[in-house]
Amino acid sequence: MVHPRVLQALGQPLLGHLDPVFLALMNEIQALLRATFHTENEFTIALSGTGSAGMEAVIANLIEPGDRAIVGVNGVFGSRLATMIERSGGIPIRIEAPWGATIPIEALEQELARSAPVKAVVLVHAETSTGARQPLEDVGALCRAHDALFIVDAVTSLGGIPVEVDTWGIDACYSGTQKCLSCPPGLAPLTVSPRGMGVIRKRQVPCHSWYLDLSLIADYWNDHSRAYHHTAPISMLYGLREALRLVHEEGLPPRIARHQVNSDALMAGLQTLGLSPLPSPGHRLPMLNCVTLPDGIDEAMVRTHLLQQYGIELGGGLGPLRGRVWRIGLMGESCRQAHVLTLLNALEEIFAGQGRPAQPGRAVKAAEEVYTHSLGSARRGA
Amino acid sequence: MVHPRVLQALGQPLLGHLDPVFLALMNEIQALLRATFHTENEFTIALSGTGSAGMEAVIANLIEPGDRAIVGVNGVFGSRLATMIERSGGIPIRIEAPWGATIPIEALEQELARSAPVKAVVLVHAETSTGARQPLEDVGALCRAHDALFIVDAVTSLGGIPVEVDTWGIDACYSGTQKCLSCPPGLAPLTVSPRGMGVIRKRQVPCHSWYLDLSLIADYWNDHSRAYHHTAPISMLYGLREALRLVHEEGLPPRIARHQVNSDALMAGLQTLGLSPLPSPGHRLPMLNCVTLPDGIDEAMVRTHLLQQYGIELGGGLGPLRGRVWRIGLMGESCRQAHVLTLLNALEEIFAGQGRPAQPGRAVKAAEEVYTHSLGSARRGA
Repeated sequence: MVHPRVLQALGQPLLGHLDPVFLALMNEIQALLRATFHTENEFTIALSGTGSAGMEAVIANLIEPGDRAIVGVNGVFGSRLATMIERSGGIPIRIEAPWGATIPIEALEQELARSAPVKAVVLVHAETSTGARQPLEDVGALCRAHDALFIVDAVTSLGGIPVEVDTWGIDACYSGTQKCLSCPPGLAPLTVSPRGMGVIRKRQVPCHSWYLDLSLIADYWNDHSRAYHHTAPISMLYGLREALRLVHEEGLPPRIARHQVNSDALMAGLQTLGLSPLPSPGHRLPMLNCVTLPDGIDEAMVRTHLLQQYGIELGGGLGPLRGRVWRIGLMGESCRQAHVLTLLNALEEIFAGQGRPAQPGRAVKAAEEVYTHSLGSARRGA
Repeated sequence: MVHPRVLQALGQPLLGHLDPVFLALMNEIQALLRATFHTENEFTIALSGTGSAGMEAVIANLIEPGDRAIVGVNGVFGSRLATMIERSGGIPIRIEAPWGATIPIEALEQELARSAPVKAVVLVHAETSTGARQPLEDVGALCRAHDALFIVDAVTSLGGIPVEVDTWGIDACYSGTQKCLSCPPGLAPLTVSPRGMGVIRKRQVPCHSWYLDLSLIADYWNDHSRAYHHTAPISMLYGLREALRLVHEEGLPPRIARHQVNSDALMAGLQTLGLSPLPSPGHRLPMLNCVTLPDGIDEAMVRTHLLQQYGIELGGGLGPLRGRVWRIGLMGESCRQAHVLTLLNALEEIFAGQGRPAQPGRAVKAAEEVYTHSLGSARRGA
């Protein structure tokens, strides 16, 4: 779901991509993105492609042929990163963890020592294929101690849980617009630290991609040069500016709290229906609730029924989790109490129709208790 | 300018990128694009990036390390193609022509013989930096005779002059949405022949770009597989469908005739003001009118005045043409008699204000004569 103000912005008449009014809009987007990423990085932009283009831009620019990069692989997007490192001529050193688990910092530390020199450590903050939340707080210092860059995929996390680029010592971080920022897909918010830009500017050979060459793109977004590179996707940038304004009108801390309480309520309801979270406590994403299914459920049938009768789309399992989990998004504008309760109601009804033992209203009640408790806490200032 | 129906389409609520309703929309876009490119190519899609992403996708997928590719260089975009060929590990063989001129077919023929084997011949159909229209009709047969692929940049031409992919034997052709298709920038219409797809499927090593890997993208657009690759830019595709429907409601032949008559009228008016077309007769693009300027004009000042007082944006000269030409776009929805007359009126006024000898109304009259003549022809069925 996208806020009506964003839809309205998308449909505004066009400006030229070098028109002074449009350039001012680009500056505003940069400032809003810096506030969202919690960074002072000058190079903070919206790339002209989806989140995967952001991933490729960061890897293709920072990983040169022969570079070793440690990459956490515990789901679809870690695997994709390893593939991109290979395609850029780098050597991915995969640290694997079971799908749903996270990468232990001890494993990163050991590998940094064993494989030195390492050009970069690459981690997925919010693994959309498993719902796992990767701790990042202490990785930046570790990377600096080993003279490695720290690269983070924040496609699904940005705007829903804290992403502290500067505090956590992240050198390059990219996201997508269609997750917790609630803008249509098509742009990749991206920020690179001065240390990261220094590496890019000092490359021996240009990166394979001209379209995603960040040194050229930087010269277009830089207000002092504005060198033409490619034609910016004007309408999408209108939409993103409005989406980011909405994020900051709400405020990041309340927005993050909203994601957490809706996830807690959803999970409380789902557990009464026999669905359990896949990731362990403390490593669960609020915007991507990945739950394992009880035996005897025709999961594909239930999802089709939800989509056709209720207009609710759940994600199925990917890779080794196919048929075993659901991935329930509660992102940005879609992360609302009404959606949580509607889904729980629908599932109770469908499960009862499949002859499963049911206590009508129990799931909704469990969720409502979470909301009541949370409202109480808020009133008490807790 | 974009038609209000396209703006309205951009602002429609979102569907999921694997939703059956959205997949049907993708099929419709493919059919409309095939009709626009005049091709039966199954692989005819809208790539998730601007026209430059289309350029990079074609080069990165078709040019493998060590491949030689002949590229016509007579402006900004031919140079960019040569750069991309190099970045893909290929060897560009540049055939240069002065800016504003076209690449002679004899030069291509000689080079194909001299440099054999050649993997591809790459030409820009409509060179936006010079207004030159490259003849393509006989190049495809020549390429086949030398077992080379034929690659065409149709960013500015598609929808404004004929682009006959199958008849002309083109193996890969890409465009942009924001030129004569009158959709906002952000997508690259792209078509690849079965011969071209065969080359891509038989690559020894995958192309450097994962995001632009056409073998993976083909599996998402293929209605039988729909394998997830990246999240499609939903809103932009809504807009493109509507823009393509408008193209075919008007019909390509009337649309092409409209571009020609407006360009003829504009040129007739400009010549009375002392502005002459840069390209030679027979090689002038109707949607991008590149004219050399009379002496004594402060061209940057005139352009600023036009933008600020009249809301008209003219392109300045690029590279060696900086300060020497104007590039006047008459593309898609913006290609209208009212725009031609408004611009000519404004220029007459500004030139008179600069103390240049003027015969008030002469430029507009010259343009109107073209329209009258053309209406007459149309009434006579000519």
